[in-house]
Amino acid sequence: MPVKSNFSVTPYSVSGNVDYQKLIKKFGTKPITGTLLRRISKYTGGDLHFMLRRGVFFTHRDLGWLLDRYDQGEKFYLYTGRGPSERTHIGHLIPWTMTKWLQDKFGSKLIFQITDDEKFLSDESLDLSDTRRYAMDNILDIIALGFSKKKTEILIDTDNADILYRNAIRIAKKINYSTVKAAFGFNESTNIGFIFYTSIQAVPSILESVREGRNVPCLIPHGVDQDPHFRVTRDVLPKLGYYKPASIQSIFVPPLSGVSGKMSSSDPNSTIFLTDDPKTVEMKIKKYAFSGGQPTIEEHRKLGGNPDIDVSFQWLKIFFEPDDRKLQKIEDDYKSGALLTGELKSILIEKINSFLEKHQERREKARDVIQDFLVSREDRK
Amino acid sequence: MPVKSNFSVTPYSVSGNVDYQKLIKKFGTKPITGTLLRRISKYTGGDLHFMLRRGVFFTHRDLGWLLDRYDQGEKFYLYTGRGPSERTHIGHLIPWTMTKWLQDKFGSKLIFQITDDEKFLSDESLDLSDTRRYAMDNILDIIALGFSKKKTEILIDTDNADILYRNAIRIAKKINYSTVKAAFGFNESTNIGFIFYTSIQAVPSILESVREGRNVPCLIPHGVDQDPHFRVTRDVLPKLGYYKPASIQSIFVPPLSGVSGKMSSSDPNSTIFLTDDPKTVEMKIKKYAFSGGQPTIEEHRKLGGNPDIDVSFQWLKIFFEPDDRKLQKIEDDYKSGALLTGELKSILIEKINSFLEKHQERREKARDVIQDFLVSREDRK
Repeated sequence: MPVKSNFSVTPYSVSGNVDYQKLIKKFGTKPITGTLLRRISKYTGGDLHFMLRRGVFFTHRDLGWLLDRYDQGEKFYLYTGRGPSERTHIGHLIPWTMTKWLQDKFGSKLIFQITDDEKFLSDESLDLSDTRRYAMDNILDIIALGFSKKKTEILIDTDNADILYRNAIRIAKKINYSTVKAAFGFNESTNIGFIFYTSIQAVPSILESVREGRNVPCLIPHGVDQDPHFRVTRDVLPKLGYYKPASIQSIFVPPLSGVSGKMSSSDPNSTIFLTDDPKTVEMKIKKYAFSGGQPTIEEHRKLGGNPDIDVSFQWLKIFFEPDDRKLQKIEDDYKSGALLTGELKSILIEKINSFLEKHQERREKARDVIQDFLVSREDRK
Repeated sequence: MPVKSNFSVTPYSVSGNVDYQKLIKKFGTKPITGTLLRRISKYTGGDLHFMLRRGVFFTHRDLGWLLDRYDQGEKFYLYTGRGPSERTHIGHLIPWTMTKWLQDKFGSKLIFQITDDEKFLSDESLDLSDTRRYAMDNILDIIALGFSKKKTEILIDTDNADILYRNAIRIAKKINYSTVKAAFGFNESTNIGFIFYTSIQAVPSILESVREGRNVPCLIPHGVDQDPHFRVTRDVLPKLGYYKPASIQSIFVPPLSGVSGKMSSSDPNSTIFLTDDPKTVEMKIKKYAFSGGQPTIEEHRKLGGNPDIDVSFQWLKIFFEPDDRKLQKIEDDYKSGALLTGELKSILIEKINSFLEKHQERREKARDVIQDFLVSREDRK
């Protein structure tokens, strides 16, 4: 008997304990197989990002096709995005870090879309000056990750509507209300800007083709919750003569409160923000990170901990411990009871704070170069 | 017993024999009264355009309020528009000519919106290069009417999305699907660009206020079929702190085939295009203009004609004979039988061809100044 899944994933809400294997079936995506990973490592001199090795990026659309095209000399460009919020958190780093790695390895051009319109349209309490402020702030975190200045352009929806709108309506003309109703759960009271919005998110996936006057393959690294947007996009683009964009899709970084659901900025105690200071990080991990350990040291030494439900371990696995052997040792020691919850948390705290120290430095420096990344910069006109 | 109205008016289709008095009730607009006309003529040194005197502009929203504001020193600006099509016809001249007269009399700034996006989104067979070509062609007719170069800016939706989109989403956020469904008859298969579009048409009615950083009254002369757009707009703008736009609304120029319905470019034999040559005009009027005359000359001399159903007479009344006394004489002579249908048609043919000869000359000259009218021109940046 099929078990009814008690989770829900849309671009606008994630709830329940997400079963990623079931989600693959639900969304109709394909798992990223060993064969595909070996193909990727052919182009990178054997290197394979740990988020690929560990299944943090676990599913895709048309990745094999994209590599076929690459084999035939058709270089792809990258597209990813950000719905700006007051503060970015470590969950946002997953697709961005993968995108940066792919840019480095494949020398790809990147279009980074800041969807301030989406944020504005989806939240009654925000006005455009809020989302503008969020956008300019979040861009600092993006630039801090080290994207190539030459090969990256950051596109802010409300600033770059001259580029976006005329292409968006070409796409919008092929999408009817019943499609977005089904894909995003819209209803009679959904505002008409939000109804239109998915066609704005679709544009970067054709933008290089529009500019070049020929089809250019596009790869979109993104969190799996964004798939409904690109599923709609992929249905439309062939009707306009464009390639469907390929994608690789990541799991969510679990909130500190437990391994189900998706980290959200609206619960600060369940999240590490990229601007948190070391003391705050230490406090949050110690106080809120859900532990897979035993109630007492004695029991823990005897029975060991469960890394599968331990948020600190999961964070190390997903992002903060790139070294597979070190990670394996942590896992083994935790399971055996040799490593206590407090010790595991200390390892994570040190990793996060070391990352954030460098990130926050680069974030400040990013203020000086922000204009160089914007699509409107002079030499792009 | 109330008589069921057998006509329908939306921005996207007009059918049946439009009863304008019933339409006023249906749309909830107000008739343009003698009192209002006398108020207008106070500002124009007693002059009152014949389209106002004769009820071609027959209904309004908030015209009294607009004049109150004017009395208190708040100048209004004008906004009108054009959904570009392959060719413009004489029906399009009605709101444009009124707008030009108001600009002359009140020294008003004018925003003229070219809604190429709307046209593209509403017609499956058109692509953006078609609607672009239509836009650039139709703009020639607009400029030919003699709008002030200094006080007029022509805004092309797909070219000026940088101005439009960020304001449109502020409006769109306050309009839900059920509202546009009711106002425009949308359904599940309506494309999401078209669903969003009304918020783009709304923007020029706040644009001067946005630019000035204070509320500036706006008057929109338009054909009555556009009222649903501005009804939706008017509901939203106060929520954003803006004045509702005022409007004056015109009847439709009847097609040559008869006094019901609305002239449409899709039936060339029922329409005079602004680029028709004199022979074509003569042929169309002689062959297709529905006559209120009698079957034979003898009967006509005896019984007289009916100007109310005679399209040639109606065209003279609506647009081509500004002189009230001359029009009255034509009406009297036609009713008495002194004026034959052929003679009435000759009067109209001469009037149209004389108008078109000058218009087509100015239309050609407009090619040289088109850039001066576009919103993107250098001194506006």
